[in-house]
Amino acid sequence: MESNAINSDVQRPFGLLSRINSPADLKQLSVEQLPLLCKELRQFLIENVSQNPGHFASSMGTIELTVALHYVFDTPYDRVVWDVGHQAYAHKLLTGRRDNFDTNRKFGGLSGFPNPSESEYDTFSAGHASNSISAALGMAVATELNHDNPLRHVVAVIGDASISGGLAFEGLNNAANTKSNVLIILNDNDMSIDRNVGSLHGYLAHITTSKSYNNFRYKTFNALKKMHLVTDRQRGPIMRFNNSLKSLLTNEQNIFEGLNIRYFGPIDGHDVQRLVRVLRDIKDMKGPRLLHLRTVKGKGYEPAEKDPSRWHAPGRFNPQTGEVVKSSSKVALPKYQEIFGQTLLALARQDERVVGVTAAMSSGTSMNILQKEMPGRVFDVGISEGHAVTFAGGMATDGLRPFVAIYSTFLQRAYDNIVNDTAIQSLPVTLCIDRAGLVGEDGVTHHGVYDMAYLRPIPGMIIASPRNAAMLRDLMYTSLVTEHGPMAIRYPRGTADAVVDTASKNCMQLGRGETLTAGKGVQVISIGPIASLVAQAVDKARSGGLDVAHHDAIFLKPIDDSLMHSVASTGSPIVTVEDGTVEGGLGTAVTDWLNEHGYERKVVKIGVPDRFIYHGSVPELYKLCGMDSDSILAVIKSESITQKE
Amino acid sequence: MESNAINSDVQRPFGLLSRINSPADLKQLSVEQLPLLCKELRQFLIENVSQNPGHFASSMGTIELTVALHYVFDTPYDRVVWDVGHQAYAHKLLTGRRDNFDTNRKFGGLSGFPNPSESEYDTFSAGHASNSISAALGMAVATELNHDNPLRHVVAVIGDASISGGLAFEGLNNAANTKSNVLIILNDNDMSIDRNVGSLHGYLAHITTSKSYNNFRYKTFNALKKMHLVTDRQRGPIMRFNNSLKSLLTNEQNIFEGLNIRYFGPIDGHDVQRLVRVLRDIKDMKGPRLLHLRTVKGKGYEPAEKDPSRWHAPGRFNPQTGEVVKSSSKVALPKYQEIFGQTLLALARQDERVVGVTAAMSSGTSMNILQKEMPGRVFDVGISEGHAVTFAGGMATDGLRPFVAIYSTFLQRAYDNIVNDTAIQSLPVTLCIDRAGLVGEDGVTHHGVYDMAYLRPIPGMIIASPRNAAMLRDLMYTSLVTEHGPMAIRYPRGTADAVVDTASKNCMQLGRGETLTAGKGVQVISIGPIASLVAQAVDKARSGGLDVAHHDAIFLKPIDDSLMHSVASTGSPIVTVEDGTVEGGLGTAVTDWLNEHGYERKVVKIGVPDRFIYHGSVPELYKLCGMDSDSILAVIKSESITQKE
Repeated sequence: MESNAINSDVQRPFGLLSRINSPADLKQLSVEQLPLLCKELRQFLIENVSQNPGHFASSMGTIELTVALHYVFDTPYDRVVWDVGHQAYAHKLLTGRRDNFDTNRKFGGLSGFPNPSESEYDTFSAGHASNSISAALGMAVATELNHDNPLRHVVAVIGDASISGGLAFEGLNNAANTKSNVLIILNDNDMSIDRNVGSLHGYLAHITTSKSYNNFRYKTFNALKKMHLVTDRQRGPIMRFNNSLKSLLTNEQNIFEGLNIRYFGPIDGHDVQRLVRVLRDIKDMKGPRLLHLRTVKGKGYEPAEKDPSRWHAPGRFNPQTGEVVKSSSKVALPKYQEIFGQTLLALARQDERVVGVTAAMSSGTSMNILQKEMPGRVFDVGISEGHAVTFAGGMATDGLRPFVAIYSTFLQRAYDNIVNDTAIQSLPVTLCIDRAGLVGEDGVTHHGVYDMAYLRPIPGMIIASPRNAAMLRDLMYTSLVTEHGPMAIRYPRGTADAVVDTASKNCMQLGRGETLTAGKGVQVISIGPIASLVAQAVDKARSGGLDVAHHDAIFLKPIDDSLMHSVASTGSPIVTVEDGTVEGGLGTAVTDWLNEHGYERKVVKIGVPDRFIYHGSVPELYKLCGMDSDSILAVIKSESITQKE
Repeated sequence: MESNAINSDVQRPFGLLSRINSPADLKQLSVEQLPLLCKELRQFLIENVSQNPGHFASSMGTIELTVALHYVFDTPYDRVVWDVGHQAYAHKLLTGRRDNFDTNRKFGGLSGFPNPSESEYDTFSAGHASNSISAALGMAVATELNHDNPLRHVVAVIGDASISGGLAFEGLNNAANTKSNVLIILNDNDMSIDRNVGSLHGYLAHITTSKSYNNFRYKTFNALKKMHLVTDRQRGPIMRFNNSLKSLLTNEQNIFEGLNIRYFGPIDGHDVQRLVRVLRDIKDMKGPRLLHLRTVKGKGYEPAEKDPSRWHAPGRFNPQTGEVVKSSSKVALPKYQEIFGQTLLALARQDERVVGVTAAMSSGTSMNILQKEMPGRVFDVGISEGHAVTFAGGMATDGLRPFVAIYSTFLQRAYDNIVNDTAIQSLPVTLCIDRAGLVGEDGVTHHGVYDMAYLRPIPGMIIASPRNAAMLRDLMYTSLVTEHGPMAIRYPRGTADAVVDTASKNCMQLGRGETLTAGKGVQVISIGPIASLVAQAVDKARSGGLDVAHHDAIFLKPIDDSLMHSVASTGSPIVTVEDGTVEGGLGTAVTDWLNEHGYERKVVKIGVPDRFIYHGSVPELYKLCGMDSDSILAVIKSESITQKE
């Protein structure tokens, strides 16, 4: 026992980290020890994430910031709100979750994002970008109204891509107005998941060039303050004067100071000792403040520094070589995303009205395939889904045919834009809803399970989901060549069933479903690629002598009247299967249709139940929700028995 | 005949206006005639809107701009996108809709907002704020990609309140990045519907103080240009240099130039001749440009200039005296909004955790009642519904109990925030959904008919609607004193049934409905104040000998199991009545419940059908949708007959 302990003290690479089970332990270290701790954290992340795939490059870039925040602030009493939580791995490691960090993103394990139900250090749910400033402002107001003594410090940590979202701007605009003591830390790594876009980005790049000037200004102010020549209250006017000077020197404006938010920076976000000093200096200043850090995404791991997009969430990799381990199975099959990207390219070649819009997910959605060949036909608008849809509406007004690819969960940001800026005007915008259904390891904030339910109430929407790769291609083609208002095509993350030829494509009939297996017994209706799990179950049931039928609705709206009549007229029980919430999706649409057309039929709804589903692999979550092939088979069997009784 | 014509030329007050049936006619006038035309337009609006109530003050402030735009640009080939279309009345008058302008906002008449299906001059639907820049940018891109020759000019007209919305910021940020030739006109009247809030507002006010400087800069550039000493291409660097100088002179930053958008202004938006000159000057410049106008809301009508909030949409008024005509009926009854405001005040007095949040609708929602007594407990965040909800989530995280009052149609902007920033974290934010249901004259972009359908799929949401004033009070109290996550309380615009005592309040049971009239025949289930129309129909049916029952669901979610069992077990047909879309609301919830619990019952759904409903009075629209008392009675009768057969 004793020799083991000695060995571990000497040889373990995590001599400091292994002693830290909470920020209280961290505070025992000297400032001089912090760089070594950062090194250990980095090594820990490399070793861990290489074996347990997760987000990598973002958290590598925030290690010093995380250490400095927990070192300087009194967490969890003080509130740190992480914007887009995939930068928060080091935060998890320092707040009591090191020993089970290998359960990260696994079923029943740690969440890959901050999760208030997991830890009191996770102050707010942070799955979707740009919400941190608004949430932090709410907390800052609360500590004042609650008469907390002492007032909690509230810090929002937001990336340069997230801050370009409209919600972040609304937060900044209001932070300046309320005068609450919120500290906004801008983690500027010159990157969103893909390249950063938009003018604010160029603006931040310029600001950085004036680094030495800002540094001078900051030091000057602190020197004056120490000499009691100025007070915090005087800082505003002084800063403004200084800033005008700077503006003249650098040809640049400071947007934040224009909004009356005190600006500090930019400073090197990887100098942990300096970070500690700066945070201590500005911690107790009053009013809204912004500290601008320059960081490197993937910092400390050379392959990730060189290609941070690739290393955003690299999957399993060899930590020594930086070689990403490819999964050996199904190598030949493309992803749905690739089918989308290749089809869009084919359509754009054929029809010059075709343009693509993405919101900072050019590679994630495979919009980069078109972008590479026709950069002028693709618009990456950054993290601004609402703008993406309205912008597409404007393009459709004047004859273009925009295909807007947005993840299902993020499309929630554009709900009003879909209603007002496409549907009411019946504009032919094609919403390509990526990552539809349960997404697996990203978990509760990322599942794309509401889109069918929230889109169905919108008049005139066409809502479809392809069963397979060829049908995704055909639906996209159909959307281009037929007349209609907005049309949504939803498809999941992951591997499709086949390689398809994007040159040969078929125009489908809007609102027409398809019977895959005819039968008189239980009638199964599915929508989307989950048809393959249904087909397995139906095959087994039929092998077992049950005369089960399987239909693919293809269109949620308009739903296929003639298919529905033929299904309902069998008089058999109906089972619906969908990769989305059962509260308002296919099952509800079928139930509503039957009711409206005077059929009294039972519908058993298989899909995501009406509760929040956390993370795990997709098969694990399917099983949890009773959406796996065995569960579907069990329902078919029990309904077949019911029918016979 | 002839003498009449002569008379009309001489004596009619609209000598110029009456000749203008399209912008082509307008272009026949000399620049010197334009001030008189503006005067006539103003007089026409005063005379017309005083008799046919509509939006008033905004359009009074944009008359000169409207005239100048149609005078300088080649509409409709060139595109003018109006943000929040209630500023676009003069635009309607100049584009062929003068003679039927008295049908404005009336059933079957003109829409109160720009409507592309009404006129080719209305380029985009403009009911919800902040979408104009994004839409205009889409049009600017389209004209370039379509190789239009000549390129269309594209102009977005946006108010100072609208530009503070996140969507507008996303549009600005992307406009700067695409380099498309979009001209943004900032109509800065220092007002949103209520007072303007947020830091950008203060910023704009400061910018104005530097008017003479900007004027100087603008003149200098144009002089240099005329002397061929500079080209448009050189404008950027020169402007930046100038701007740094300005910044030093005025202690101000120019946010727009910081975003790399050329800034012109501020100039007097009521000097139509100067506006024409400026627009001609900057019309053909390349890239994104912003022209900042200072205007006066209500300009030219003294009562409106003095109290523009009051005159935003004043109702009928005496044009001579400025006295607003009060409707004589039901004088003693308060609006639902007042019940909300008074109750909120009572709750805030009782419980210091209570705070109010509004998004620029402090008086519209009656949040101003609390604001007046406890200004520190009310947060008007401006036009930023997404931020409002996330900010409330942050406050709820640290123990406050925020009541967020947002119109149903605008809450669509906050859908993702509701899911991620309240529901997933089960935060006790009370969403007070104002203007729920058909809103009448504001029409298609403003009906609050989707909220029940889009909220129902969200796990853990509590969704309720009060039948009457006392129940609104009690639901608000219940939300405060019970433990739950987010809770939505929806109520309509307009007069409630009674004055209520906000001191005496009852805690209701979450998810418990109520039987109002017991019976064995047709079972009517309603939700919300439409119960009163149902009650009329039920009374008549019962007088006619039908044993009809009437139940109030009160809660859409969770729906009352025990009430539903008792309804379903009668075996009678079920009729649902709701002031919302039938695609996913109460009717669907009941159908889903019956299916899940094994009842085979027909449900007849009365509510807003699955198509866009335009404008008219609420009774007219109810009749159109079959939601009036007679229509409900007809359904009860026909279902009673069906049952007997």
